Amino acid sequence: MIDVGIIGASGYTGGELLRFLSKHPKVEIVAATSRKYAGKPINRVHPHLQDLELEFSDVDIDNIDADLIFTATPHGASMKIVPMILEQDIKVVDLSGDYRFDDIETYEKWYGIKHEGPLDAVYGLPEIYRDKIKNAKLVANPGCFPTGAILACMPLVYEKLAETFIIDSKTGVSGAGIKPTSVTHYPNCSDNVIPYNVTDHRHTPEIRQELSREHPVNVSFTPHLVPVIRGILTTVHTFLKEDLTPKELESIYAGFYQGEPFIKIIEEGEMLRLSAVRGSNECHIGCFEIDDNRRAVIISTIDNLVKGASGQAIQNMNIMFGFDEKTSLDIPAVHP
Amino acid sequence: MIDVGIIGASGYTGGELLRFLSKHPKVEIVAATSRKYAGKPINRVHPHLQDLELEFSDVDIDNIDADLIFTATPHGASMKIVPMILEQDIKVVDLSGDYRFDDIETYEKWYGIKHEGPLDAVYGLPEIYRDKIKNAKLVANPGCFPTGAILACMPLVYEKLAETFIIDSKTGVSGAGIKPTSVTHYPNCSDNVIPYNVTDHRHTPEIRQELSREHPVNVSFTPHLVPVIRGILTTVHTFLKEDLTPKELESIYAGFYQGEPFIKIIEEGEMLRLSAVRGSNECHIGCFEIDDNRRAVIISTIDNLVKGASGQAIQNMNIMFGFDEKTSLDIPAVHP
Amino acid sequence: MIDVGIIGASGYTGGELLRFLSKHPKVEIVAATSRKYAGKPINRVHPHLQDLELEFSDVDIDNIDADLIFTATPHGASMKIVPMILEQDIKVVDLSGDYRFDDIETYEKWYGIKHEGPLDAVYGLPEIYRDKIKNAKLVANPGCFPTGAILACMPLVYEKLAETFIIDSKTGVSGAGIKPTSVTHYPNCSDNVIPYNVTDHRHTPEIRQELSREHPVNVSFTPHLVPVIRGILTTVHTFLKEDLTPKELESIYAGFYQGEPFIKIIEEGEMLRLSAVRGSNECHIGCFEIDDNRRAVIISTIDNLVKGASGQAIQNMNIMFGFDEKTSLDIPAVHP
Amino acid sequence: MIDVGIIGASGYTGGELLRFLSKHPKVEIVAATSRKYAGKPINRVHPHLQDLELEFSDVDIDNIDADLIFTATPHGASMKIVPMILEQDIKVVDLSGDYRFDDIETYEKWYGIKHEGPLDAVYGLPEIYRDKIKNAKLVANPGCFPTGAILACMPLVYEKLAETFIIDSKTGVSGAGIKPTSVTHYPNCSDNVIPYNVTDHRHTPEIRQELSREHPVNVSFTPHLVPVIRGILTTVHTFLKEDLTPKELESIYAGFYQGEPFIKIIEEGEMLRLSAVRGSNECHIGCFEIDDNRRAVIISTIDNLVKGASGQAIQNMNIMFGFDEKTSLDIPAVHP
Repeated sequence: MIDVGIIGASGYTGGELLRFLSKHPKVEIVAATSRKYAGKPINRVHPHLQDLELEFSDVDIDNIDADLIFTATPHGASMKIVPMILEQDIKVVDLSGDYRFDDIETYEKWYGIKHEGPLDAVYGLPEIYRDKIKNAKLVANPGCFPTGAILACMPLVYEKLAETFIIDSKTGVSGAGIKPTSVTHYPNCSDNVIPYNVTDHRHTPEIRQELSREHPVNVSFTPHLVPVIRGILTTVHTFLKEDLTPKELESIYAGFYQGEPFIKIIEEGEMLRLSAVRGSNECHIGCFEIDDNRRAVIISTIDNLVKGASGQAIQNMNIMFGFDEKTSLDIPAVHP
Repeated sequence: MIDVGIIGASGYTGGELLRFLSKHPKVEIVAATSRKYAGKPINRVHPHLQDLELEFSDVDIDNIDADLIFTATPHGASMKIVPMILEQDIKVVDLSGDYRFDDIETYEKWYGIKHEGPLDAVYGLPEIYRDKIKNAKLVANPGCFPTGAILACMPLVYEKLAETFIIDSKTGVSGAGIKPTSVTHYPNCSDNVIPYNVTDHRHTPEIRQELSREHPVNVSFTPHLVPVIRGILTTVHTFLKEDLTPKELESIYAGFYQGEPFIKIIEEGEMLRLSAVRGSNECHIGCFEIDDNRRAVIISTIDNLVKGASGQAIQNMNIMFGFDEKTSLDIPAVHP
Repeated sequence: MIDVGIIGASGYTGGELLRFLSKHPKVEIVAATSRKYAGKPINRVHPHLQDLELEFSDVDIDNIDADLIFTATPHGASMKIVPMILEQDIKVVDLSGDYRFDDIETYEKWYGIKHEGPLDAVYGLPEIYRDKIKNAKLVANPGCFPTGAILACMPLVYEKLAETFIIDSKTGVSGAGIKPTSVTHYPNCSDNVIPYNVTDHRHTPEIRQELSREHPVNVSFTPHLVPVIRGILTTVHTFLKEDLTPKELESIYAGFYQGEPFIKIIEEGEMLRLSAVRGSNECHIGCFEIDDNRRAVIISTIDNLVKGASGQAIQNMNIMFGFDEKTSLDIPAVHP
Repeated sequence: MIDVGIIGASGYTGGELLRFLSKHPKVEIVAATSRKYAGKPINRVHPHLQDLELEFSDVDIDNIDADLIFTATPHGASMKIVPMILEQDIKVVDLSGDYRFDDIETYEKWYGIKHEGPLDAVYGLPEIYRDKIKNAKLVANPGCFPTGAILACMPLVYEKLAETFIIDSKTGVSGAGIKPTSVTHYPNCSDNVIPYNVTDHRHTPEIRQELSREHPVNVSFTPHLVPVIRGILTTVHTFLKEDLTPKELESIYAGFYQGEPFIKIIEEGEMLRLSAVRGSNECHIGCFEIDDNRRAVIISTIDNLVKGASGQAIQNMNIMFGFDEKTSLDIPAVHP
């Protein structure tokens, strides 16, 4: 049994952490902080958690008693508190972008924020870094788009079968967070498709960094907002360096992800769709079609709030504490 | 550990039974039948159940080996097989309308189907009939609209505080089943609201029967299709026979449903919404407002596929076999 | 040819006024004001009006040169400027609630705003007040819910066939205006139904006032937000004082609205739906079903931004200036 | 004044032809055929056309009296009737794929239908073939995806600035037609994104043919179904052969489409979205961003039922008969 706290528990990722942790048999939630809602019952903000008898509390960083803290805080805010938490010998899974980059310059350029200084963090993609995560004190939980994109590209990078990736992603609106804006206003984004940050999205350098560890690859990334609550469908267009059949392509992926508890390889010919992962921590990868230009299409689907954020954070926690990786995450998606 | 079979497992209610049962610690799924998909893996039809290594089988009623069968079969089909299952000393939870009515005449009039003959069935609304369900061999699982409507009206009926109920329901499209029709075709029902069976819906006599057990009440029921996948929000308009404050009204409901594991009384002033029950077996009841015509408004929300169908069916099974009523159903809703 | 200005042109009703007026053969748009966007092209805010070569201007009430002004300003703001416009001998169609009430007390009670003083205004529902509108200097354009509700109830009131009306409305999200809020945030209201102001909506006294002109009737009104961009579907539940057949009911409505250019009586048995009026100035009225409690159901549909706001405002303008009432409004709905 | 008939008037493209033609000042609709609904009023199928007093008729190809016929018939059906219509000296705009291809082999390979024999047809994209359309007897109306894709790519092809195009399209569900299927069933496609025919969509060779007229280019095309009623947003990813700034790219497009009545160049930095063309015949083209891999992104938006089908068909008719090209199509989009 471990004691766990959530800093920044009133947003969507906070809500998802609470949804899973409240049913985790080895976790006691000792704090769920929110400056705005301190003293109010959790279910005033997260109406689906009626059973959770817990109130939001105010943050008191210097005085936390926990084994692990999830920092579901904005970019730039995490780096102000994470060092203080680590000093108290508490492990951290940080859901912001603050500790995802190898070099501070890239972060500062793309986020436009002066960095407070690097820390020894592990990039929290278990399918790639499981062994390092086991012993990490600080895990930088991946961004939502990078999770879907890296998982869809990595086997081809690893096998040196492709080096140019055009990544066209379609994301649900919850990815924009809980704060209402003109773009997320229902009449503006319902029945609509809205491309944004077409060539300059912050997740681009994160995807590049991870895919280029062995040798540099070209990554072009473009996200679109679609009228969906949850989910990211990522369409990877890439040009194969060798002639392959779809079945060969499929088996490369099946081999690479063999034994992975949350990766499901969807057979060539079967349909991919967001509803098949809605609310779950699974990542589906499939399509494997190749056209006469030797362009291959690989498609991945995740729930941006789960495998793309809070579910993956809990998966990392499970690894860090030696729990079964699926604990509390072994819930099927909600389809339809 | 009990052996459970599902007859008619390829529809939405079949998918929901499988979603919950596949994680039920005391259940082994021994059969999931589908004539159309016999021999195919479950996940070809239910893409969210990738982990479920099971194939659809063909029905062989005479040769079932199970402790309980869920018959998720159409109205008229259930009564052809339920007697044969019961004869083999297997318990049944029937999700059709075939065994919900006290008198066959009402059924035949509203369903337009000749009935094969009544059986000793218990109406499976645990909040009202828990004790009878415990010992039932055949449970008639309530309709989706009746579940939301009866739970929202019953305390007022019981307290003799009202006798005329205008029930205006808004249902998600999954309530129409998995079979595509012109009405459920996305371009026709998205961004739309469509009233249907405005005064002659089959669930009207079912609601009437249950609310009129003690003394007759007037029930007027009108459903509307709204562009939502799951959920029924039921707005009950009724005229109170006494002056009451909203708080008094709320406390009547809180008292009536005290200790119920799946009923959540939403405080007067708090918002009700479908997402707070999406994917879960909860029924939220609230609003409790009263206008200057002494009209009271009570609102309930359920997920039509869960508390309105498969979740309630499993709740009934849990009661029938003495399991904790929440087993496998203790999963929070997915909001947003 | 008349000169027309719009005060408050950057909201949804402003956009709709511009959509129709820009194609009106007898209107020149001389001003479209917006403090926030003054100097910017209209199409930066209204992206569907790419052909409209016009910029937002700042408001200068003392110095307007126009034949008519639409005040698409918030409640409380209209009454600060409308008297000044009328003094310059310019006609006004006001889209706020400021001049809709016979008595200031009702307004002040329900809107919580101190009124600046009444003016001689005509309630702008052409189907009821066409003759008065012809000579009006100030037209108070009706609220969106009242438009759909009054049109659906009036024939029964007029014929003294009913005196208790339970009005259950379902509205699209654009009715909440262009300003984003937590409720209109896509992840919160998509795939959802949200009742609000269940017994205390400001449109209640407006509906009551109009339906009670001849003799008092009981009006209970409850609105719900549904995941639809445009449209209000109003379900009127009422108890008939006489036995009538659906066909008799239908013919009462057909007679009452005979010759009305924008009212379409939908035959009993035909489906009503929002898409059939989407983007158009029509109001469809139908259903006409009666159950065994002598409850009749009448359903109306409008586009809240058109017949419920800007379209009706232009219809009023057409009447005030002797134009054909359908000028610029004779555009079919967009279905699907 | 010309007499116009529609063969196949009960589908969505038939409904859109009727929506515009019913308000066309130079057109009389002499026939709207539907075998299924012959004898029924148009508004039973197209509920938004309440004012249109016309009934569906049965087809009698040998006995048509019209100046032009729109054949809104399925692929394979058009080629059985178009020759017979042309023989009666009646012009035809065919909305199927039957006459879009230069060589029959390509058609037969991709459509899997034996062709009845080629005819002298003009590909009906006015922005490219306006002069030929003027004198055409038979216009092959372009496919919906090709319209958006070709218009977005052509200036770069014409200027020889790119030769590899990865076209990632997102389409509304009405593109699948009026016939309900499992994929278009609301619970299956709402809140979802579904890629389909990822490398083998029939519109691929049509796009290739038109873009490769001068010199061959590589076209890779992938469509996705998104939960939108109308609209196609096409994201073109291409690699520029020269260094260009976004502004230079924008001005190439502005120059190429100068004077085009329905093409709107959206300034670099402004957002593209489907609602800005919803219900209208416009095609918006913009984005013009270039990343550090010299990948340029061009985005186009159309309403698939209007510029992607019926609106363009009427635009072609207007050109064929010397009418102002915008006649009856000069209606702004419906946003929000």
